[in-house]
Amino acid sequence: MTTRLLRLFLVLVLIASVSAQSTGPGSGDLMGFSPAGSSSQRTLEARFDSMLKTENLRDWMKRLSARPHHLGSAYNKENADFILSLFRSWGYQAELEEFHVLFPTPKTRIVEMTSPERFSLKLQEPPVEGDATSGQHAEQLPSYNAYSIDGDVAGPLVYVNYGTPADYEELDLRGIDVKGKIVLARYGGSWRGIKPKVAAERGAVGCLIYSDPRDDGYFQGDVYPKGPYRNENGVQRGSVMDMPLFPGDPLTKGIGATKDARRIDIRSSPTLTKIPVLPISYSDALPLLRNLDGAVVPTAWRGSLPVTYHFGGGSPTVRMKLEFNWDIKPIYNVIAKMPGTERPDQWIIRGNHRDAWVNGADDPISGLVALMEEARAIGELAKTGWKPKRTIVYAAWDAEEQGLIGSTEWVEQHAAELRERAVAYINTDSNGRGFLGVGGSHTLEKFINEVGKGVIDPQTKLSVWERARANRIVNGSADARRDALDRNDLRISPLGSGSDYTPFLQHLGIASLNIGFGGEDGGGSYHSIYDSFDHYTRFGDPGLVYGVALAKVCGHATLRLANADTLPFEFGNFADTIELYSREVSQLADSMRSETARMNADIALGRWLVVQDPTERLVVPKQKDGVPFLNFAPLQNAVAKLRASAANYQVQTRGKSLEPARQKQLDEILYRTERALTRTEGLPRRDWFRHHIYAPGFYTGYGVKTLPGIREAIEQRDWKEAEEQITIAARVLENVAAEIERAAKMF
Amino acid sequence: MTTRLLRLFLVLVLIASVSAQSTGPGSGDLMGFSPAGSSSQRTLEARFDSMLKTENLRDWMKRLSARPHHLGSAYNKENADFILSLFRSWGYQAELEEFHVLFPTPKTRIVEMTSPERFSLKLQEPPVEGDATSGQHAEQLPSYNAYSIDGDVAGPLVYVNYGTPADYEELDLRGIDVKGKIVLARYGGSWRGIKPKVAAERGAVGCLIYSDPRDDGYFQGDVYPKGPYRNENGVQRGSVMDMPLFPGDPLTKGIGATKDARRIDIRSSPTLTKIPVLPISYSDALPLLRNLDGAVVPTAWRGSLPVTYHFGGGSPTVRMKLEFNWDIKPIYNVIAKMPGTERPDQWIIRGNHRDAWVNGADDPISGLVALMEEARAIGELAKTGWKPKRTIVYAAWDAEEQGLIGSTEWVEQHAAELRERAVAYINTDSNGRGFLGVGGSHTLEKFINEVGKGVIDPQTKLSVWERARANRIVNGSADARRDALDRNDLRISPLGSGSDYTPFLQHLGIASLNIGFGGEDGGGSYHSIYDSFDHYTRFGDPGLVYGVALAKVCGHATLRLANADTLPFEFGNFADTIELYSREVSQLADSMRSETARMNADIALGRWLVVQDPTERLVVPKQKDGVPFLNFAPLQNAVAKLRASAANYQVQTRGKSLEPARQKQLDEILYRTERALTRTEGLPRRDWFRHHIYAPGFYTGYGVKTLPGIREAIEQRDWKEAEEQITIAARVLENVAAEIERAAKMF
Repeated sequence: MTTRLLRLFLVLVLIASVSAQSTGPGSGDLMGFSPAGSSSQRTLEARFDSMLKTENLRDWMKRLSARPHHLGSAYNKENADFILSLFRSWGYQAELEEFHVLFPTPKTRIVEMTSPERFSLKLQEPPVEGDATSGQHAEQLPSYNAYSIDGDVAGPLVYVNYGTPADYEELDLRGIDVKGKIVLARYGGSWRGIKPKVAAERGAVGCLIYSDPRDDGYFQGDVYPKGPYRNENGVQRGSVMDMPLFPGDPLTKGIGATKDARRIDIRSSPTLTKIPVLPISYSDALPLLRNLDGAVVPTAWRGSLPVTYHFGGGSPTVRMKLEFNWDIKPIYNVIAKMPGTERPDQWIIRGNHRDAWVNGADDPISGLVALMEEARAIGELAKTGWKPKRTIVYAAWDAEEQGLIGSTEWVEQHAAELRERAVAYINTDSNGRGFLGVGGSHTLEKFINEVGKGVIDPQTKLSVWERARANRIVNGSADARRDALDRNDLRISPLGSGSDYTPFLQHLGIASLNIGFGGEDGGGSYHSIYDSFDHYTRFGDPGLVYGVALAKVCGHATLRLANADTLPFEFGNFADTIELYSREVSQLADSMRSETARMNADIALGRWLVVQDPTERLVVPKQKDGVPFLNFAPLQNAVAKLRASAANYQVQTRGKSLEPARQKQLDEILYRTERALTRTEGLPRRDWFRHHIYAPGFYTGYGVKTLPGIREAIEQRDWKEAEEQITIAARVLENVAAEIERAAKMF
Repeated sequence: MTTRLLRLFLVLVLIASVSAQSTGPGSGDLMGFSPAGSSSQRTLEARFDSMLKTENLRDWMKRLSARPHHLGSAYNKENADFILSLFRSWGYQAELEEFHVLFPTPKTRIVEMTSPERFSLKLQEPPVEGDATSGQHAEQLPSYNAYSIDGDVAGPLVYVNYGTPADYEELDLRGIDVKGKIVLARYGGSWRGIKPKVAAERGAVGCLIYSDPRDDGYFQGDVYPKGPYRNENGVQRGSVMDMPLFPGDPLTKGIGATKDARRIDIRSSPTLTKIPVLPISYSDALPLLRNLDGAVVPTAWRGSLPVTYHFGGGSPTVRMKLEFNWDIKPIYNVIAKMPGTERPDQWIIRGNHRDAWVNGADDPISGLVALMEEARAIGELAKTGWKPKRTIVYAAWDAEEQGLIGSTEWVEQHAAELRERAVAYINTDSNGRGFLGVGGSHTLEKFINEVGKGVIDPQTKLSVWERARANRIVNGSADARRDALDRNDLRISPLGSGSDYTPFLQHLGIASLNIGFGGEDGGGSYHSIYDSFDHYTRFGDPGLVYGVALAKVCGHATLRLANADTLPFEFGNFADTIELYSREVSQLADSMRSETARMNADIALGRWLVVQDPTERLVVPKQKDGVPFLNFAPLQNAVAKLRASAANYQVQTRGKSLEPARQKQLDEILYRTERALTRTEGLPRRDWFRHHIYAPGFYTGYGVKTLPGIREAIEQRDWKEAEEQITIAARVLENVAAEIERAAKMF
């Protein structure tokens, strides 16, 4: 034992003694289980754990990522069939469920700088040494952004930083207009689909998106194949469908895209972009950036290429021509069920997507193989006599990359059934070495904390929960540190979008969790041909040990949800977090008020103008309307009711149990509390999104907006809508509080 | 009139009306003047202003920067003679005052990468197009750091970021030792002399310093000659003498370096570096950085070169050989006096250095030509009958670049006389387009605010004070904004080091001001051959209009100090700022206490270790001693006395005047209050620095430390010394308070 190991050992002993009371996985009753039930559940989970093998994950990853397997490809269908046969062999009732969806693929991709000199962009990712699959050129999807419209446009190039609305305010200050021009945006700062959306709103005719090495390349670390980071030729593919409006097939909003579904005309689909857009590498971007004219951009806009970054607007001029095959393609979700013995109509759904942009060893295979090993072990358990109380549904989604299409179509197709039966949805996607990360419904926060305390981290032998907590304390902000030290449970993140939980959570109101490990698997293979088995097993999770840890966390969660006497929903943590969000939106209004007043005073008194460099000829910004004081009282009163109902439920249920029939009835009330957070009218201007606590941001994309109706109205300075949305959110929360009271009355 | 101009005009009218009460240069009495005296002083200043000509500045700049003029060069002596003759022609009693100082120049400069491949660094700055003087190779000093010792060393290279003590803590975490190695530090983060000092303390055998384009190059803006920023070949020369110990000639600490002065042996001089050090360009640094092995450095360490930054430690290996001519060279200060009529023994001293590293159009000629034009106008005024009440002394210092040598030797040589007679020292150095910036003694804060309100900004036609205030309000931190809005006066900065005020202020306790414009003159010509007339007149201050503005500010300040009935020292602002510093040092101890407790807990409980990536094999840092509560009461009580005395002086003097003899006596008390802030024992371990409010940081160099005895003891975690220094600073402040009371009793 080296000194270092000895020190680590002593530290672990110390941590174990300090935190024994809260982390002991073997002590106390599990949420929703009787003492006896807890004990047998623990035994079951120990058997489950003992069956998990890293070799399976490794073998499947190698096979599933051996060839490109995107939507519509031959190998993707092969993978579906392979997974289907495995599920069947493990004892599941498994089927492929087919949909037919719009999927554009490139026919023509031309981008050229036409002045000051002629330069044609390569738009190619070459194979690299030591990567066995990077040379499969014939089967690889070219680098492109799916759901860009066709176009042949030309114009001067303007650099717009991340291309967010705030970035255009900087352009406004300088009197730079993108009308009739092509914008060059860098990846980051927002979800990619926001960039062409905002650019089009501003009148741009085309949009190029590149990966700057500052955010995704050599600035971060050594590039592939020397290290894991994006090399100069790596391109991030990705969908630019307007998912914050609605995800899924662009032609069949709200209904399953079955073969004969009623489709709108492609040209009238609101989720296609308004202008052509293409992603490029930083080696392709460099000559463009080098030739930009105009003023130097602000410090925060500058990347890590060896040039001075300018706004452009006159030079260079660029032409981009894009044409796509606008095909309708079949997709195949693998759906595997293990019926519950006692409450078969209560479904625990567990999913991960299967399709990739190219080989996708990390995204999504690293998560998928964990799901498969978990399903295999549960299948094995079921063969030995144990059966779940509730039905378990495993899903391997297709067409996630294009816009959560497989999961969305399935959810839309089965909406009525899911509304009745779905207890919870547990999602995984890419996974890697590092720390446990959980996002999801806060009614499941206490539950998933309990699960995390019972799984051991492969590197430190602490629980994954304890390591995640230590990370927040040591590396978190002052607020995060305090939160982690003061609360019994780690606060889970709210969910925006970016993976298959969205239709479950935000369209139907099914309590959801999104789970994964990461933070020590940095790299830049995302959506490129370099996301390969070789890359992943060198840098992502070399021993696949975090794959097994993920299978344990999700497997335990699934097994507990399936077996519990009473579903482990809890409302104290939920109310606490809602109160936090309520404070946040009110503070948002306050800080916008003081910031607006400050800026207006600086403009009105002329201070703003006189401190600008006269040679830069900035345009004085318009004063903004002052921010009125909004009536947050309805929201605050609703939160108070929610807190009271949560406390009452805790008091009423303490130490009590129900007879089985009433337990089933209680379950239904419990899992439908999440439905009560939705309204069929949905959010303003996007009725598909029905959840009133969690939504992806209309102008941030994947980034979450909590209390989205209120928050986005304030951000958009629509005070009338903000007050309306306060009332609506208050009513939603009061309804949930009433449901919780109803649950409490069951005892 | 364009729309833009019209808008600007309206804004200016608005500002003028809003701030008339505080900015009217023509209203109210001037500090220290009677109503009648104020009026005639204003008339005098108006005449002074009308004489100033941008053409003179331009002509002199062109001439003075026409050839390299460093310490010991022929052209530097020519410039001295030229300036001497001008001063004489303007009616001054002017002399050259000669000293003889140690000045090493390079004999051998070899730096080569010896593995993994052989590469010899160029160490050359080539001429560029459009720059008339950049080709004067024969007369240019090569790029080097003066007062590096000789050496021929070799070893593996380690990248140490800015090379500050905190950076070495990052190396410690990774178990990286620099013993026997050569460090590569980038410019910035501290004064350059700190880098070899700390490297040597850590056992390094050599030090290279390069300019990273992130801090000083293309990341900032277009590079020369396209734009003003440092190009890939630009090198920052500069002194690495241990100036925080003492500046001036390394062989004659504390005494004037006259021809026959007693000198110590060169080898025993404590202000020479302990290891060889050389500055290099970023084109020379690039191959070295590209070949560094080891782990990737933290984000904050990464620059803007197109490589992944690594720590190194094994590769590359580097050899550096440096040999210098260790000559004793003559230097020449130009000293020009205009004797005062009433109080000739009270001296107002005004200085700017004359020597440059190469052509130095910006540094120092931009400041020097403003001083010259100011002196010329005052000379012209004196020819028309007006004479100053007090003596005015103009100085054009030599050898500033090597370590404030000209000014320091003069101050040391004339210490006794200066202690008696020096009222104040006003320093300038490089000047450029932008905002008024003032640092200095806070007893002169109200005075210099008054001066600033009476000078018009050439671009906005507001007062330079009003524009500087607007800048703090609009662009400052929340604290700076509040301070600017709430206080009648703009708070001036405390002075650390970096120009010729240091010997006056910090060695002798002569109230000082350092004044310059800047902020809109960004660029990277500093200490390179590209600091030329062509560069400056394109980018620095094209019309020399800020040169004239500087002449006005400093000229008015000089004329008012020279003519006032009572010297315009004021103690309310001073006490207010001392109270701020007192709060800061106490908060520093508080924040170190909580930060230490936090870090110690994370280490002790093992949290720190378990959140590290095990593959990085970090070394657990040692716990630090807890920070005790210190007794700040003596300091707080002294500040209270200071406040009371300042208020009393204000009350006693209100509306009163003294007879001339008592006025002179009062003056002496007033200007010697700054002496009372010094102690002959000086600061711990550096007795040359005697001021107990302002000092350059022992480990930051130019960066100021206020209440330095206390602050640095806390920073170095020497709690015993901290409490001793609290007592000492309290006694110093009590002495000053007693002097202020004595002044108040004069009425």
